[in-house]
Amino acid sequence: MLDYAALAALAAVIREGSFERAARALHVTPSAISQRIRLLEERVGCALVIRDQPCRATETGRRLCQHVDQVQLLEQDLQGTLPALAAQGMSRASVPIAVNADSLATWLAPAIAAFGAAHPVLLQVAVDDQDHTAEWLRSGAVLAAVSATARPASGCNSRPLGAMRYLAAASPAFLQRHFAHGVGAASLALAPSLVFNAKDELQARWVRRLCHRHVELPRHTLPSSHAFVTAALAGMGWGLHPQALIQSHLDNGSLVELLPDAPLDVPLHWHTARAASSLLDGLSAAILAAARTGLLPP
Amino acid sequence: MLDYAALAALAAVIREGSFERAARALHVTPSAISQRIRLLEERVGCALVIRDQPCRATETGRRLCQHVDQVQLLEQDLQGTLPALAAQGMSRASVPIAVNADSLATWLAPAIAAFGAAHPVLLQVAVDDQDHTAEWLRSGAVLAAVSATARPASGCNSRPLGAMRYLAAASPAFLQRHFAHGVGAASLALAPSLVFNAKDELQARWVRRLCHRHVELPRHTLPSSHAFVTAALAGMGWGLHPQALIQSHLDNGSLVELLPDAPLDVPLHWHTARAASSLLDGLSAAILAAARTGLLPP
Repeated sequence: MLDYAALAALAAVIREGSFERAARALHVTPSAISQRIRLLEERVGCALVIRDQPCRATETGRRLCQHVDQVQLLEQDLQGTLPALAAQGMSRASVPIAVNADSLATWLAPAIAAFGAAHPVLLQVAVDDQDHTAEWLRSGAVLAAVSATARPASGCNSRPLGAMRYLAAASPAFLQRHFAHGVGAASLALAPSLVFNAKDELQARWVRRLCHRHVELPRHTLPSSHAFVTAALAGMGWGLHPQALIQSHLDNGSLVELLPDAPLDVPLHWHTARAASSLLDGLSAAILAAARTGLLPP
Repeated sequence: MLDYAALAALAAVIREGSFERAARALHVTPSAISQRIRLLEERVGCALVIRDQPCRATETGRRLCQHVDQVQLLEQDLQGTLPALAAQGMSRASVPIAVNADSLATWLAPAIAAFGAAHPVLLQVAVDDQDHTAEWLRSGAVLAAVSATARPASGCNSRPLGAMRYLAAASPAFLQRHFAHGVGAASLALAPSLVFNAKDELQARWVRRLCHRHVELPRHTLPSSHAFVTAALAGMGWGLHPQALIQSHLDNGSLVELLPDAPLDVPLHWHTARAASSLLDGLSAAILAAARTGLLPP
C-alpha cells in the first residue's frame, strides 16, 4: 500500500497552501510534513509540490491528491455501513468540484447547498470558464466538473445536463445610443461590450454568428455574473446574460434584447472521476435533478 | 521616446493572451507583433512576455503595461481638450482595477457601472481577496485597487473608503443543530464553515477573536458572494457575510447571527497609481462617493 500519512500531508499542503498551515491542520510539526513529502517525492521519483506562496501541486502531485479524495469518499461510504467507525469521530469527505460562474449564479448553487447541508461532505467549489473546467478534472484538481465539453477525459464519465440559454441584452438607453441604426459589424465595433474575463468567448461567438466574420469588440471586463447585470442596467455595455438572471428585467423593460429570437444556447455536461462512491453518485443525482428544472432539455 | 507601437503590441498580447489575438486586435500580422516585442525585449534587456497559454507579463512587462495604461489616460484627457483628435475616431482608455468580490457584490458595482456608462473608458475589473488587491497595483497589473491595506505602494496614493461590516450568520436550523450548546471552540471545530477561497481569512479571524486561539474549522469553499448566501440559507454552513447582502434575510428570520453584537469590520482603502489623469480622478470621486453611502464611515 501507499503511505497514506504522507499522502494526507501532501493533500493538506495543497489544500492549505503552506507547510505551516498543513502542519496545524494535521496537528503535527512542519518538519514532519516536510519529511513525509520528501519521502513521497523520493518514492514517486519526481517533485509533487511547487514550493511557492501558496504551495501548488505539480501534475503528478495533483493526480495523487485526486487519489486521496477518492479514497476519502470510499472511507465515507464505509462509515455509513460500519457505524462503529463513524462513532470515533464523524469525519467529512472533501469533494472538490469545478463549475462555471453563471451556473453557480443560477440553477447550481441551491443544488450544491442543499446537498452539502444534507451529507457528511465538505464541498470545495472552484469557478472557471465552462470551456476550461474539464481541464481541472483531467489534471486531477477536482473530482467532478460542470463543463461545456461533452467528451469525458480518460477515467471519467460525462452526462449531458441540458443547455444554458444566454440572451444578448442592454439597457434601452444603451440600445438607443449605440444601435439606433441596427445591430451590425459597424455598430458592434464601437459599442462597449461586457465580458466576464479574458476566457469569455460568448460575446465574440454571438457576433460571429450574426456577422459571419470576426469583429473586434470594445470590452469592459467584469468577473461577476451579478455585477454583469448591474452593469447592463446602468448602460455600461451590452453582453450575453443567462436568461434566468435577467428575465425579470426583460419583463419590466429595464433591459431589452439586442435582437429578437437570437439566443445562444450553451450545452453543459456533468463530468465525474470514476469512483465507486455513493456520495459522489448522490451529488451527481442532485445536480442532474437541478439541471432538469434549471436548464433547457439536452 | 519609447517605441509606442511596440508598447501597444506588448499591452495587446497581455490583454488578449496570445500573439495571434493581439495581431487581430491591432490589425497587423502575428510576426509583426512578435518582432516588435523581441526588439522591445532587446532594448529593455529582459523578457517581457512569458510565452504560455495564455501569455502573461513578466514583472518588467507588467510595469510597462501599466505605463501604457497611464499614457492612454493622458491621451484621453487630451482628446477632451482637443476635440479634433477625438473626431478621428473616439477611442476609449482602458482602466484596469482590482477589487474584492464582496465590494463588487454590494456597494461597488453600481458605482463602477455608472462611471463606465458615462465616460469614454473600458474598465477591466479583476477580483481578488482584499488582502491581495494592493499587490496587483504594486506589480503594475492595474491602475487602482480596493484594498484592506492602508499603506500605499511607492508611486501610489491611498485614501480610506470606510469599513465593510461582516456578520457571522447561519440558518436557524443550522444554529440549532450545531450550536445548541453555545458557540465556542468545541462546536466551531465540528460545524462546517463557509470560506470564499483559500485566501479568505475572515472566518478564522472572527473565531480567533472569540476563542483567543486558533481553531481548525471544517470548510466548504464557495467562491461567490451570492452563492455564499444561498449556501447559508440552505443550512450548508456558517460564514461571515457582508451585512448589506443578508440584512433582509436577518430581518425575516431566514438567517440568524451566531452571536449578537459580534460584527467584524474590515476597513477598505482606495489605492491609485499617481497619474495626472482627470479620468482616474473622476473614477476615484465616484468610488469615494459610493463608499460614503455603502460603507461605515472611516
